[in-house]
Amino acid sequence: MSTELPHAAVIARDLIRCPSVTPSEGGALAFLEQLFGKAGFTVDRVTFQDKDTPDVENLFATIGSGKPHFVFAGHTDVVPAGNADDWRHGPFEGEVADGVLYGRGAVDMKGGIASFAAAALAFIEEKGADFGGAISFLITGDEEGPAVNGTVKLLEWAQKQGHVFDACIVGEPTNPNALGDAIKVGRRGSLSGIVTVNGVQGHAAYPHLADNPIPGLLRLMSALDAVEFDRGNERFEPSNLEIVTFDVANPAFNVIPARAQARFNIRFNDEWTLDSLKAKISATLEEAADEGLNWALEFRPDCSESFLTRDDTLIGALSDAVEASTGRRPELSTGGGTSDARFIKNYCPVVEFGLVGQTMHKVDECTKVVDLDDLAKIYRVFLDAYFAAKA
Amino acid sequence: MSTELPHAAVIARDLIRCPSVTPSEGGALAFLEQLFGKAGFTVDRVTFQDKDTPDVENLFATIGSGKPHFVFAGHTDVVPAGNADDWRHGPFEGEVADGVLYGRGAVDMKGGIASFAAAALAFIEEKGADFGGAISFLITGDEEGPAVNGTVKLLEWAQKQGHVFDACIVGEPTNPNALGDAIKVGRRGSLSGIVTVNGVQGHAAYPHLADNPIPGLLRLMSALDAVEFDRGNERFEPSNLEIVTFDVANPAFNVIPARAQARFNIRFNDEWTLDSLKAKISATLEEAADEGLNWALEFRPDCSESFLTRDDTLIGALSDAVEASTGRRPELSTGGGTSDARFIKNYCPVVEFGLVGQTMHKVDECTKVVDLDDLAKIYRVFLDAYFAAKA
Repeated sequence: MSTELPHAAVIARDLIRCPSVTPSEGGALAFLEQLFGKAGFTVDRVTFQDKDTPDVENLFATIGSGKPHFVFAGHTDVVPAGNADDWRHGPFEGEVADGVLYGRGAVDMKGGIASFAAAALAFIEEKGADFGGAISFLITGDEEGPAVNGTVKLLEWAQKQGHVFDACIVGEPTNPNALGDAIKVGRRGSLSGIVTVNGVQGHAAYPHLADNPIPGLLRLMSALDAVEFDRGNERFEPSNLEIVTFDVANPAFNVIPARAQARFNIRFNDEWTLDSLKAKISATLEEAADEGLNWALEFRPDCSESFLTRDDTLIGALSDAVEASTGRRPELSTGGGTSDARFIKNYCPVVEFGLVGQTMHKVDECTKVVDLDDLAKIYRVFLDAYFAAKA
Repeated sequence: MSTELPHAAVIARDLIRCPSVTPSEGGALAFLEQLFGKAGFTVDRVTFQDKDTPDVENLFATIGSGKPHFVFAGHTDVVPAGNADDWRHGPFEGEVADGVLYGRGAVDMKGGIASFAAAALAFIEEKGADFGGAISFLITGDEEGPAVNGTVKLLEWAQKQGHVFDACIVGEPTNPNALGDAIKVGRRGSLSGIVTVNGVQGHAAYPHLADNPIPGLLRLMSALDAVEFDRGNERFEPSNLEIVTFDVANPAFNVIPARAQARFNIRFNDEWTLDSLKAKISATLEEAADEGLNWALEFRPDCSESFLTRDDTLIGALSDAVEASTGRRPELSTGGGTSDARFIKNYCPVVEFGLVGQTMHKVDECTKVVDLDDLAKIYRVFLDAYFAAKA
């Protein structure tokens, strides 16, 4: 058995070794700049800034000047590793063991970037820069974070540079169990919020002199957790709410705290709009709050409506490429989380297809090395078919 | 008007000038050693140590060899001053302005020590060392801290020296509004615990791949919060549970966390023992937990049973002395927090009576100078009556 890694796996390993936890670039974009530049792409690294969020670096690379103009989109930033000691292999080591590549971002989504980079570089190497169309990479460092200084601004920037995109694949991990399971052709919307209850600090032995905010927040969050928003439909899974944190941070057993805060995230289908969902949340909390409870609800600005993509050439060519490689026709799915596809859909038809998502955001995030290579081959077959169909 | 301070106020001022923030002795015990030694007391300074806590100095002074053996107990250590600039008078200056003595420890409880020292010294000066009974001072430097190297070990030490105590007054500030409001004749018990729910971390958009621990902990803590332990009785206030913190510390809206933890503290009356209360807590949580919930309950080691002191001579003589000085019969209270009386009760009947507690642990902690003198007179009248009754 050869110990040589396929190109996609080498790129993925090198990217994992860049500790690019949002909002840090971690060397990942510098690495891609060099990789794409050497292959003849024109590369721009652009930093965006906004109030109340960290500055974030992004990268745009393009080659060819004809039509159609196809774009691969992805993010090099990753969620934190948590306790590194819990990992079998260091989260930023990029170790390969028994044909499996370990590390934060292995599937979400440095692996996806590695596979489409390997595919596009091989395509250009064979066809040349003047192959008739254009291929671009839209790479952000702000997808896992507030998503304010990333793809939204990079799309605006590219439009101002004169780029008009005809179709896009986002390399997010879309497959539940095996490569080829599913292409995402739409997304549920996402809405996040913060619920705060303010009380009055005091000594635990003198509760009549204090006002503990925790019981009130328990009631509010229990009410939110009990809501059945809908049961889904033929296009989408049921809408779902998760309480993602609940915090007081009081170190003393003999002190009643002054404040408690919880955060929630809802993934919602096309039975709801952002407006109707916000109204439902507000009404649920108002009904659950005891009179006199000092509480507040704040919705986060980074929210999105649900959407569904319909483009037969894009979806057909990708489905065919997946079937040719895996022998199975992929499901056209709208499940799972949001991605930057929610921004790209305003510029061109967009679908998502990448690795197997089981370990994403978890300890020991990993991907089979063979999946990286197979995914690169699928992307390559897709590029051939897509540009042939549009020629 | 005389500018001369009464003896109790001079002692209190000198003690405040010793910056004895736990676990530092700050010169306070050295000062008392000299004061008691000059008056003919036998004085021992003993340092105790234990793992994971700082070494702490304590002081034991005694005079007389007969029975009954009465003991005054107190602590010279104080809580930190916080920001000294927030104080009108320096927290360790011992300044007197408009008949008020300012400083950290003024009421909790260098003032109490000063008043009982002045009372006992005057008593001995008049009656002589061979007055028939014995008087001791049990002074610790570890009451505001972990309370590990203080009164517990000092009591054991005194017992080994052959001392058998017949009654004790702790000079903690027991009066809510005015000198003479209340004598504490018992204390509620205290029990603290930690409830943990473990889940499986994951992406908020893929809840079927994760297991959010927050809803389970919401149910457990809501069940605890809903328990009515009792309605109190003629001796004690109702038992009360406070959830003092609830923490997840997950910074990301798109991540389902792996673990959630809450802490509670219960102040309980004599309707419960530690054992019966622990059983009630465990049963409540077990009933509330859904099958398969991965949860754990841990009780903290620093807990205490409730107690009620019944000693007619001690309580009667002290109540009479208070009434003689203030014109009011003090309430016999069991409210409020714990003190070292919880340890002393295992050796002899113990009550607490001291200054007005309003400013304790606060910026500008202070006491009226006249209260220090009046409290010394109350203690002196008590000593006369107590030893006369037991003679």
